[in-house]
Amino acid sequence: MKATGDQQLLKRINRSVLLRLLRAQPGLSRARLAQESGLTKSTVSLLVRELIDDGWLSESDATTPGDGMGRPSTPLVINVGMRALIGVEIAVQVVRVAAVSLGGEVLSSAIEPLLDKSPGAACRQAAVLVAQAHAQLVLRGLALSGIGVGVPGAVDDQSGLVRFAPNLGWRNVDLLPLLATSLAAAGVPQVPIQLQNEADAAALGEFEFSPEGAGEDPLVFVNCDYGVGAGIVLNDRLFIGAQGMAGEIGHTILQVDGPRCSCGRRGCAEAFFGERTLAQPDADPLRAGTFLGVLLQNLWVTFNPRVIVVGGNSCAIHPELLEEAMRTVEKFADAAAMPPPLLRAARYGALAPAVGAAAFVLHDYLRPMN
Amino acid sequence: MKATGDQQLLKRINRSVLLRLLRAQPGLSRARLAQESGLTKSTVSLLVRELIDDGWLSESDATTPGDGMGRPSTPLVINVGMRALIGVEIAVQVVRVAAVSLGGEVLSSAIEPLLDKSPGAACRQAAVLVAQAHAQLVLRGLALSGIGVGVPGAVDDQSGLVRFAPNLGWRNVDLLPLLATSLAAAGVPQVPIQLQNEADAAALGEFEFSPEGAGEDPLVFVNCDYGVGAGIVLNDRLFIGAQGMAGEIGHTILQVDGPRCSCGRRGCAEAFFGERTLAQPDADPLRAGTFLGVLLQNLWVTFNPRVIVVGGNSCAIHPELLEEAMRTVEKFADAAAMPPPLLRAARYGALAPAVGAAAFVLHDYLRPMN
Repeated sequence: MKATGDQQLLKRINRSVLLRLLRAQPGLSRARLAQESGLTKSTVSLLVRELIDDGWLSESDATTPGDGMGRPSTPLVINVGMRALIGVEIAVQVVRVAAVSLGGEVLSSAIEPLLDKSPGAACRQAAVLVAQAHAQLVLRGLALSGIGVGVPGAVDDQSGLVRFAPNLGWRNVDLLPLLATSLAAAGVPQVPIQLQNEADAAALGEFEFSPEGAGEDPLVFVNCDYGVGAGIVLNDRLFIGAQGMAGEIGHTILQVDGPRCSCGRRGCAEAFFGERTLAQPDADPLRAGTFLGVLLQNLWVTFNPRVIVVGGNSCAIHPELLEEAMRTVEKFADAAAMPPPLLRAARYGALAPAVGAAAFVLHDYLRPMN
Repeated sequence: MKATGDQQLLKRINRSVLLRLLRAQPGLSRARLAQESGLTKSTVSLLVRELIDDGWLSESDATTPGDGMGRPSTPLVINVGMRALIGVEIAVQVVRVAAVSLGGEVLSSAIEPLLDKSPGAACRQAAVLVAQAHAQLVLRGLALSGIGVGVPGAVDDQSGLVRFAPNLGWRNVDLLPLLATSLAAAGVPQVPIQLQNEADAAALGEFEFSPEGAGEDPLVFVNCDYGVGAGIVLNDRLFIGAQGMAGEIGHTILQVDGPRCSCGRRGCAEAFFGERTLAQPDADPLRAGTFLGVLLQNLWVTFNPRVIVVGGNSCAIHPELLEEAMRTVEKFADAAAMPPPLLRAARYGALAPAVGAAAFVLHDYLRPMN
C-alpha cells in the first residue's frame, strides 16, 4: 500500500510493462508502446534504449509505413538471440538441467541420477550440469540472465529456505548459499538464482511459455511424480497459500479408509497413483488413472481453471494413466451435462519442472511488484 | 497495465488507501497517514476533508501529544455513526435481509419464506424487506451507502447476469434492473447495488468484518445449505475462476461410484451432506459430518488457507455435523503428524451470506482497482 517513491522500482516496473506489451504484441513501435502503456514518448524512448543496450530488446530490420504523419516507425521485438535462462530440477532420484531461450525454446538439456541426496552434494552435482549448459550458451553467443531451481518440497517465499522436502529428507535447508558456492566453484557467472517448489515451477513454465502468451489463467499443473502435487497460477501469479503449502493435492482424500499413504493418512491421491504405488508388481494403472481422473474433476470444480496441465514422470512411464484419467473426467462431465474442462499433457514433458524453474526467472523479472 | 491518467480513479484509489490504513490502525493523524501512504500532506488533508464531508471519517475528540514539534494531532477514525449497508440473501427457501454498520455490526435483520421463486417476485419481496431495514436506519440517523445481494448461483462478474441458479430454476437472469425497479417502487433511495454468489458473499463478510481487520488471507468459506459451495478469498480479493464457477466444492467426488447427486454425478460431497440428503428420514448426520471433514481436509491441503470458516443452514440445524467434521479433520492431521488447520463456525451464522453481501459493497469501495 505504501508508495515509496523509489525511482529504481518505478523504472523496473515500467521496463516490465514494456516487455510484457512486446511479448503480447511483438513488433510494436515506440509510439505504440507509449500509447499502450500510458507512458510519455520520451520515457519510452529512454527505457527502450536501455532495454536494447541490456540485450532484452532489438529493433527489427523492417520498418512499417508508420503513423498518420507518414513517418516510418521501427518495430521492436524481444531479443531471443542474446539472453537465455537455465533451469534445474533437483528431483528425488534425478537432476535435470535445461537451457531455455526467453521465448521458451529448450536449447539444451541433461539428466543424471541424483548421486547423493545431501543438500551440498546435490548442489555440487547440479552446478556441474549448469556449467556444461552454460558452456553451450557461450558457444551460441548467449548471455545467461538467471538460474531457477525447483525442488520437491515447500519453499519459504520470503527466506528462500526449503522448509520440508520429505522425499529428500530435507528440513529447513538454506539452499541458496549452497547453490551460489557450488555454481561459483563450477565457474558459472554470478546471476540471480530463484528457488521454487517443482510443481509451482512447472506451472509457471506452462504459464509463461504458453504459445498464446501468458494468458491461461487460472492454470493448474498436476505433477505426477514420486509425490503428487499441483502448481497453481491465478491472478497472473503463483498461488502458494499461507505457508507456501498450497497445492498438496496428493494428500486430498479420495476414499475414506482407503489404502495407507506415506504421509500417515488413508485414501490419499498419492496412495492410488504416486510413483511408489505404480511401481508395485500388482499395480493397476487403469484404476490409478480413474483416481487421477477423480482428482482432476475435483480440481476442475474447485478452481474453474482455464486449463489443467498434467505432467511428471508417472505420465511419461504410464501413458495409459492420463488417457484413463481424461476418459474419467469426460464421464463426470457427461453425467453433469457439462462440457469437459480443458486438459492437456505438459508441453515440456519430464522437463516441465526444470524449464519452469527457468521461467521463474523471467516471471520475476516481468512482475517486480509481486 | 494501461495508465489512463484518470484523475477520478486516482482519487478513489487514494481515498481507499486512507480508509484501509485507518481501518487497520484507527486513530492515525493526517501526518501519520501521509507517512504511511506516501502521499503528500496537502493531498492527505484534502482527501481527509472530503472523506469527513462524505461521512466516511470523523475526527476523534481526543488529541494526542503530537509529533516531535510538539504540535497536537487529531486522531481520525472511520465514522461508524453515519453510514450503513444493507445485505440481502435470496436463498432457495427464504429471503434474509441485514442492515450492517461499516464495522460489521448487525443493526437489524429479517427473514421470510421465499413466496415465489420467479426473479421479479423475489426482487419485490426482497425490496419490501430492504425498505423496512432502511426505515430503521433512518430512525438511527444513518445514511445508506449501498446494497449487496447474494444468490445461490453463478454470477457473471462483468455483466452482473445470474448465469445459473439451478435450485431457483434461474438461467441468465438480468437481476440488477429488476432489483433497481423493485427497490425504487418500495421507496428505497438510489444507491449502488452489488450482486454476488451467496458463498462468495459469505466469504467476503468473514474477511472484511474480521475482528483483526481484513487479514485472514487465504480464507475459504464453506456454505452447507441446500447446495454446498465455497467462497474463496485470496490475494486480498475473491477468487471466482475463469467463468465465475470456482468453489463448486459440493461437486467434488468423495467416493467413486458413491450415491447419486442431483447434478447427475455419483459420490459428490452434496450427495453426502446437502440439505436434501440430511432431510431424508434415514439420514445419518455423523456419517455426513465425516464426509464434511474429508472435504475440509481436502480444502486444507489444496489451499493452505489461514482459516476455513463453515456456515450455512445445515450447520444451524445439525450442530453435530460440524462437530464431527472437526473431529475428522483432527484425526487426519494427527495421522499426518501435522497441526490441524484453523477451522471455525461462521461468525454471522445463518446471516453470513446476507451480511457478506453488505460487506461486498464495502469491499468494492475499498478496492477500486479490482
